[in-house]
Amino acid sequence: MSPQQVHTVAEAAKNAARALAGVPTERRNAAIRMAAELIGQSRDQLLEANVCDLAAAQLMIDQGQLIPSTLDRLRLDEKKIAEMMQAMLAVAELPDPIGRVSQRTELDAGLVLERIICPLGVLAIIFEARPDAVTQISALGLKSANAVILKAGREVEQTAAALVKIIQQALGKAGLPVDAVTLVAGREVVHQLLAMNDLIDMVIPRGSRQLVEFVKANTRIPVLGHAEGICHVYVDKAAKLDMAKTIVLNAKMRRTGVCGAAETLLVDRAAASTHLKPLVTMLLDAGCEVRGDETMRAIDQRVKPASEQDWSTEYLDAIISAKVVDGVDGAIRHIERFGSHHTDSIVTEDQATAEKFLNEIDSAIVLHNASTQFADGGEFGFGAEIGIATGRFHARGPVGVEQLTSFKYRVRGAGQIRP
Amino acid sequence: MSPQQVHTVAEAAKNAARALAGVPTERRNAAIRMAAELIGQSRDQLLEANVCDLAAAQLMIDQGQLIPSTLDRLRLDEKKIAEMMQAMLAVAELPDPIGRVSQRTELDAGLVLERIICPLGVLAIIFEARPDAVTQISALGLKSANAVILKAGREVEQTAAALVKIIQQALGKAGLPVDAVTLVAGREVVHQLLAMNDLIDMVIPRGSRQLVEFVKANTRIPVLGHAEGICHVYVDKAAKLDMAKTIVLNAKMRRTGVCGAAETLLVDRAAASTHLKPLVTMLLDAGCEVRGDETMRAIDQRVKPASEQDWSTEYLDAIISAKVVDGVDGAIRHIERFGSHHTDSIVTEDQATAEKFLNEIDSAIVLHNASTQFADGGEFGFGAEIGIATGRFHARGPVGVEQLTSFKYRVRGAGQIRP
Repeated sequence: MSPQQVHTVAEAAKNAARALAGVPTERRNAAIRMAAELIGQSRDQLLEANVCDLAAAQLMIDQGQLIPSTLDRLRLDEKKIAEMMQAMLAVAELPDPIGRVSQRTELDAGLVLERIICPLGVLAIIFEARPDAVTQISALGLKSANAVILKAGREVEQTAAALVKIIQQALGKAGLPVDAVTLVAGREVVHQLLAMNDLIDMVIPRGSRQLVEFVKANTRIPVLGHAEGICHVYVDKAAKLDMAKTIVLNAKMRRTGVCGAAETLLVDRAAASTHLKPLVTMLLDAGCEVRGDETMRAIDQRVKPASEQDWSTEYLDAIISAKVVDGVDGAIRHIERFGSHHTDSIVTEDQATAEKFLNEIDSAIVLHNASTQFADGGEFGFGAEIGIATGRFHARGPVGVEQLTSFKYRVRGAGQIRP
Repeated sequence: MSPQQVHTVAEAAKNAARALAGVPTERRNAAIRMAAELIGQSRDQLLEANVCDLAAAQLMIDQGQLIPSTLDRLRLDEKKIAEMMQAMLAVAELPDPIGRVSQRTELDAGLVLERIICPLGVLAIIFEARPDAVTQISALGLKSANAVILKAGREVEQTAAALVKIIQQALGKAGLPVDAVTLVAGREVVHQLLAMNDLIDMVIPRGSRQLVEFVKANTRIPVLGHAEGICHVYVDKAAKLDMAKTIVLNAKMRRTGVCGAAETLLVDRAAASTHLKPLVTMLLDAGCEVRGDETMRAIDQRVKPASEQDWSTEYLDAIISAKVVDGVDGAIRHIERFGSHHTDSIVTEDQATAEKFLNEIDSAIVLHNASTQFADGGEFGFGAEIGIATGRFHARGPVGVEQLTSFKYRVRGAGQIRP
């Protein structure tokens, strides 16, 4: 795409956003439902486009340009299409975030201030591999009355183009501006998108840590997202061993590829003699590689040596780093130094220790006696999430429709002037 | 200051912020009150420092390096010191924004999610001329449990240093970390501050449009602020002339130097024959310069010709640009093109027209039948404001203590794992 074309797309998106802001809930929901329906009717077309992407991806894998696991994330089938449709329909059912009055004050007799929720404007989403990013983000965008510009990785371009075409048909049928959801193509357009702070209001990178870091380093547009989820479980001396085992196993092994999966196990030195061996043995027996220092390796010879790098590594795999720390203070220091402000959990029966951990750990999500794998917008009751934010600005934790909004102040008077 | 010294200050601020987050309300309020009290006891010292700044500023003015009006903003006297103290005491009285649970959901039996308000961390404030920026921002920072790094313009450096020294004494006496409020000096430190995105969480520029634009263009740290307040009053055909006159006069002339002052008057073509001349004559008679096109000049020969530049100029003076537009749609188009998303007002008796304006104008504050000069955190009941934000991210409109906070999610369970 030429720079001029990309600029035209962004301007059209801005205009669409302006129009969308005035479209009532029912019509935005109707467009989402229509898109889901058309996707269901276009299975063959979608699978065909996906086959092209898969074939091209296989070539890239053969040439070492893509990792083999990309195929799994890229592949569409009947089940995945049905899931995409269901997820869109679920978004249509969510309460409308737009137009809600979140604050109301009478400033003076007959002079009323209201704070009203409104859309952000234009969202640019830069994503890799997963076709369901298109449907999910388009649905959340329409729900929050924001226009969406999608930039798909080249490995998913054909599938993304087929999906966007269908969504645009639905927009047309529902009488909404078709430019509310658009696709731009080509690696070279990313820099241009990131520079358009006059037209784009938010950038959401979805993909590898490298992608997120690249986006954050190259734009002045606000970015919602997180580069890494280095999540910790700290097992305190006052932890029940059974509960600790259940939580650690779930936090690490339920799904190893999600951002809320635990990557480091911290065990209180005061509990090392009782809790450490059972926890490490359980993980090893469950097929999890454990990396630790000499103390840790003395417990079980299957433990591999950990390097300094391990404490700041997001494995996204059946691997965990493990360490003995000096109580909750030691755990807090370790997490502060190596964590990524995403999700961290403490297992303890001591309320005061738990409160200290919940207060002092500076992460989007902190848990007491629960698995880090709860870190998810769906679990939080947000209906759907676009990702998890680890910054402290605007949104933090799961990003759902509420986080895709802004607000403005409306003042209605009867001729009042300021004295 | 050397780069190393600035880095040391920022690291100390980060540590202070961490400690502050755990300090209860009463102790933070006590520190604010103590600072106000010590300022009252240190009048002579403050006036002495201020005299040095004034003398240096006079020299710079003589050399054409500063504009003469700087002296007014820079000058301290008994009255201004009393006002600074009062403003600090008022901040101490505000409700504490920190620790409030803004959302609570039971995710599962015995698994409770809470969204809890917490501080942002370290705020860097880059300001010019006004000594009261120091006291106001330090008070708001302490109130919201954020550490504050102040970078004062060189014209106010002696006064700022004297104030920060007193505030640090108060912090010490109240048992709070003295690095919660620090001052850095020298024009060369600005670039370094703006690059410290690992230590600084928010930048607030307070001063000229040039300063704000420079800050926005040179940092990836979130910036709260606005470069310009190009505020409009649109007088619709359905406006009562008397109300329009009252509002226009107040919006422009109550105080011409505030960001909520009107800079452009838009009059509906359908009301031009009845409303235009009285409005323009009133402004001219009140000593306001009016700039407009030939049509406008035909009304009164005192009207000066407007150039294209006038529509995007924030005069901050007794000058207004005036234009006839084609109804509310013409007004919306004009404001969209030339406005700064700050504050805009419509005068009309027609509810539907008013709603259209309130919905479609994309500004932080939109008003119906009220003066733009209401754009103020104090007027909005926020107690005190650090400025007005025109972005759509995180904060919009007046920035008070609520906008200086973030949140995190706490989950308390009894051993729950995710299925």
